Amino acid sequence: MAYLNNITTPEDLRKIPAQELPVLAKELRGFIIDIVSAKEGHLGASLGVVELTIALHYVFNTPVDKLIWDVGHQAYGHKILTGRKAVFDTNRRLNGISGFPKRGESIYDDFGTGHSSTSISAILGMAIASKLKGEATKQHIAVIGDASIASGMAFEGLNHAGVTDANVLIILNDNAIGIDPSVGALKQYLTNVKKGKAKQDNIFEALNFNYSGPIDGHNLPLLIAELERLKTIKGPKFLHIITTKGKGLKKAEENQVVYHAPGKFNKLTGDLLPKSNGNGIPKYQDVFGLTIVELAKANKNIVGITPAMPTGSSLKIMMEEIPDRAFDVGIAEQHAVTLAAGMVAEGLIPYCNIYSTFLQRAYDQVIHDVALQNLPVIFCLDRAGLVGEDGATHHGVYDLAYLRCIPNLIIYAPMNELELRNIMYTAQLGLQNPIAIRYPRGRGVTKDWKQPFKEIKIGEAQELKKGTEIVVLSVGHIGNMVASVLNGLQNVAIGHVNMGFVKPLDISKLMSIFDNYSKIVTIEDGCKIGGFGSAILEFANTHNFTNKVTVLGVEDVFVQHGSVEQLYELNNIGAKSFRNYIESLYTNE
Amino acid sequence: MAYLNNITTPEDLRKIPAQELPVLAKELRGFIIDIVSAKEGHLGASLGVVELTIALHYVFNTPVDKLIWDVGHQAYGHKILTGRKAVFDTNRRLNGISGFPKRGESIYDDFGTGHSSTSISAILGMAIASKLKGEATKQHIAVIGDASIASGMAFEGLNHAGVTDANVLIILNDNAIGIDPSVGALKQYLTNVKKGKAKQDNIFEALNFNYSGPIDGHNLPLLIAELERLKTIKGPKFLHIITTKGKGLKKAEENQVVYHAPGKFNKLTGDLLPKSNGNGIPKYQDVFGLTIVELAKANKNIVGITPAMPTGSSLKIMMEEIPDRAFDVGIAEQHAVTLAAGMVAEGLIPYCNIYSTFLQRAYDQVIHDVALQNLPVIFCLDRAGLVGEDGATHHGVYDLAYLRCIPNLIIYAPMNELELRNIMYTAQLGLQNPIAIRYPRGRGVTKDWKQPFKEIKIGEAQELKKGTEIVVLSVGHIGNMVASVLNGLQNVAIGHVNMGFVKPLDISKLMSIFDNYSKIVTIEDGCKIGGFGSAILEFANTHNFTNKVTVLGVEDVFVQHGSVEQLYELNNIGAKSFRNYIESLYTNE
Repeated sequence: MAYLNNITTPEDLRKIPAQELPVLAKELRGFIIDIVSAKEGHLGASLGVVELTIALHYVFNTPVDKLIWDVGHQAYGHKILTGRKAVFDTNRRLNGISGFPKRGESIYDDFGTGHSSTSISAILGMAIASKLKGEATKQHIAVIGDASIASGMAFEGLNHAGVTDANVLIILNDNAIGIDPSVGALKQYLTNVKKGKAKQDNIFEALNFNYSGPIDGHNLPLLIAELERLKTIKGPKFLHIITTKGKGLKKAEENQVVYHAPGKFNKLTGDLLPKSNGNGIPKYQDVFGLTIVELAKANKNIVGITPAMPTGSSLKIMMEEIPDRAFDVGIAEQHAVTLAAGMVAEGLIPYCNIYSTFLQRAYDQVIHDVALQNLPVIFCLDRAGLVGEDGATHHGVYDLAYLRCIPNLIIYAPMNELELRNIMYTAQLGLQNPIAIRYPRGRGVTKDWKQPFKEIKIGEAQELKKGTEIVVLSVGHIGNMVASVLNGLQNVAIGHVNMGFVKPLDISKLMSIFDNYSKIVTIEDGCKIGGFGSAILEFANTHNFTNKVTVLGVEDVFVQHGSVEQLYELNNIGAKSFRNYIESLYTNE
Repeated sequence: MAYLNNITTPEDLRKIPAQELPVLAKELRGFIIDIVSAKEGHLGASLGVVELTIALHYVFNTPVDKLIWDVGHQAYGHKILTGRKAVFDTNRRLNGISGFPKRGESIYDDFGTGHSSTSISAILGMAIASKLKGEATKQHIAVIGDASIASGMAFEGLNHAGVTDANVLIILNDNAIGIDPSVGALKQYLTNVKKGKAKQDNIFEALNFNYSGPIDGHNLPLLIAELERLKTIKGPKFLHIITTKGKGLKKAEENQVVYHAPGKFNKLTGDLLPKSNGNGIPKYQDVFGLTIVELAKANKNIVGITPAMPTGSSLKIMMEEIPDRAFDVGIAEQHAVTLAAGMVAEGLIPYCNIYSTFLQRAYDQVIHDVALQNLPVIFCLDRAGLVGEDGATHHGVYDLAYLRCIPNLIIYAPMNELELRNIMYTAQLGLQNPIAIRYPRGRGVTKDWKQPFKEIKIGEAQELKKGTEIVVLSVGHIGNMVASVLNGLQNVAIGHVNMGFVKPLDISKLMSIFDNYSKIVTIEDGCKIGGFGSAILEFANTHNFTNKVTVLGVEDVFVQHGSVEQLYELNNIGAKSFRNYIESLYTNE
């Protein structure tokens, strides 16, 4: 690590003779593999842009010149070269550095990323600012992958940039894969370009960009020469580079989906270390994937949709078993939702699986195309709640609040795998409304989940435990923690109701609850403002109840990264905090 | 009207000899002009597609074949030819037909539209459904304008459609204008295509579409021949037609922006009938437009952004006076928001003006790119509340609920023009947070609004009237109605507080209010679920108040079209309903 060890900032990097940079690339790759193999994190994307990262900081005058990494999980090399080598082993840990670029963390992180396809708009905003401020020579670079550039937002950015004279350089890092392999017509087109079936006037030239490439993104001298050339050209520029995701670790190159974020592995061989099987308790994701296949085999109108998350959502299981009825539409949440609406209009039953945080991208489509027309699309909102190490950009904590205000929409959170399975079954029995089913990342609690299907009555809550005076109302998976804490208390009769439905609320059960308990505690793994607790306050107010209600949930601040358990405790909805809170109630009696 | 009078359904249309169709076109145009000149509504767009509308229903077997009109304000001819001629004079009126395609209204309205760029996704969903159901010959057509196809969502739809073998025909109605003239690189490209500087391999072919055109969209024989030919071709097809917005009414062709929705006019000359000047009381829009220019002249870091609504928002005033700092980015709300975030990151002060209903399109960008990074973008949310005749697709009633759950964001609703002016002034004085300023369409209440700027204290409410027992808390423009009703009551001491800020709430004033009044009434022109009233319930609960709170606002159903006054009364927040409600309170005392 002769070169890497001497780099604290890109200033140090720029002192290295150009012909020695391939050595640095090797060191940087080794460093990333070293840390990620032991500490986990995203791997393949950063390995793929090692040469590009070095070339960018070598050629451009960062942090004066602006540099944005789209999505951001490929920015490990960038972090290591910009002052965070020494703390890189704290990556994605509580109080450690973020796994994504983050403005507060470094002057070299010009724009926080996490969700895809934002970089072109952001860099254009910066370039226009520079122009207005008279900073004529300042450079503005966005690096974006081929999966991300196919998202609508990226197109909007290109479409605007092409009619400006802003000094922007968009670098397309074309490796034919996002987390899963890229899809879509643009991807096919890019493949044709690479194969030399290049069209004379290409799409990016048609949009007024000065296009160059495709070039080998692992060839440092070539990259540096091309970036030096582009630096002298004014206006919007587009450089197309070809890279290999996982470059430099054989197994990662061969199995790019697995090595996107592989968990711990042997840094020499690349062999994955054994993972826990959760004692046979399945992930909610697999219950989704297996159940949709089971249902689809019996009901030919069922289809599945994912915007670029076949592996993460486990829709992949259906894509393999029933390929003509399972659709990966790419990073295109807006399209995914309205596609589903169109399908319902013609008699299909689409399960549209989108991560809670990414449904924010299709909010208008949920309102305008689905709910307004009351088309019964079945939304499966994966990774709801606090997601852990991915941090602030990825928590799914706003969904209950932003969905609850939409008329016609049913909102349900299963408490375990069996409930997920049964609500998926229920939803295709001729439901007259759209429904959002939200569940967390990871394992539930039920080994024996594959039981005969049972219809769930829409809007019905379940009393799990009777109590006196105090009752806890929970929605979704967090109810297991509640049940476990309450069961662990001796001689304390606290009631527990699994609400299930955030909308419609079980009004008659709530009437009886408010009649019978003086203190109501609500708990949710979502934001307190406007969420489930707020729904209970609205209920109480409408029905003139003045019982004491305590709302537990995520406070009105953006939650950072850390383990799921740590983050739940920090928000006072972990097992320990909840037990303390309940004990304090009891002690005060 | 020899032909038009005999058409009840497209079946009747199909019996007319093809060579007579230009006569029908003339009749249809005349009918549209007749009604719209007297009853108001959208004009130019429908006039531009008269020939296309006839040709589509002539060639295709509607309603078996599926037809979606993007945005939908060009569907008047379609409505008239599909059974709604007799009720067309109820267009956009309460209990009349909708100004947009609407599924519940007719079997010929295959998909409701209103917001732009949804048609490609929806028609693809339908085409995939037909394919899975084995309906091999069924046709699926979407008509989309050149302004709408440049929006990201449309690109996502094209990108997916291009890799399917779905039987879709996308017709690009290219007239170089949306509501305002189209912008962007794609528009320039389309202009080149039209001028014969056509690229050999064009963008749509690159995306795997079978492309034809451009052809004259007013030439009926040509249109019919081309549609007949395309009917025989399988897979994704793209037809590019050139039309003139406002075709057939000279003034409408000459002044396409004004005649988009011109109000009443002389049907023979096209001359506009005089409009009310509101007794000199300005529209909020003009206050926005004039104030941003005033502020921008004094502060060189101020810029303005609109996604395709320069005229509607009045940003046009700045675009004319300070063109290099006012940006129309096209129908690209997502891009608009993140562009603004990028600008803030480099020191500019962007006023990002978006209609409340369209900000739903950029929800993720508000959370992920603006609020999470706490970048002080100034959002000006126009057309908040119930918008009247545009109806369910356009009401801006969810913003308070969907914004309130976002950390870091300030939410303010001015009660009058002066408050709008002063909050715009305040926002550029170094605010450390993003702010959303929401105001309704149309006129305020203050003639004398152009007073010296005065800073508004963030989070401070204003007590307008002291009372005993009962107090009304209002946010925004609706507070004028409240003040007027309360002032009209004799001998009734009801308090009134103009809250202004929905977030942060004025906690100390609320503490004193809840200490001093037993009954609290909240009123807002937004949805009750999760909105301002809900915020007051959360406050009361947090601070252990048990005062009776009544929340007035929009109920949990989609509100249809009608006059603004009618819709407010229907939601019990109009002057009459509010007076009745207040009187009932007082009588019950």
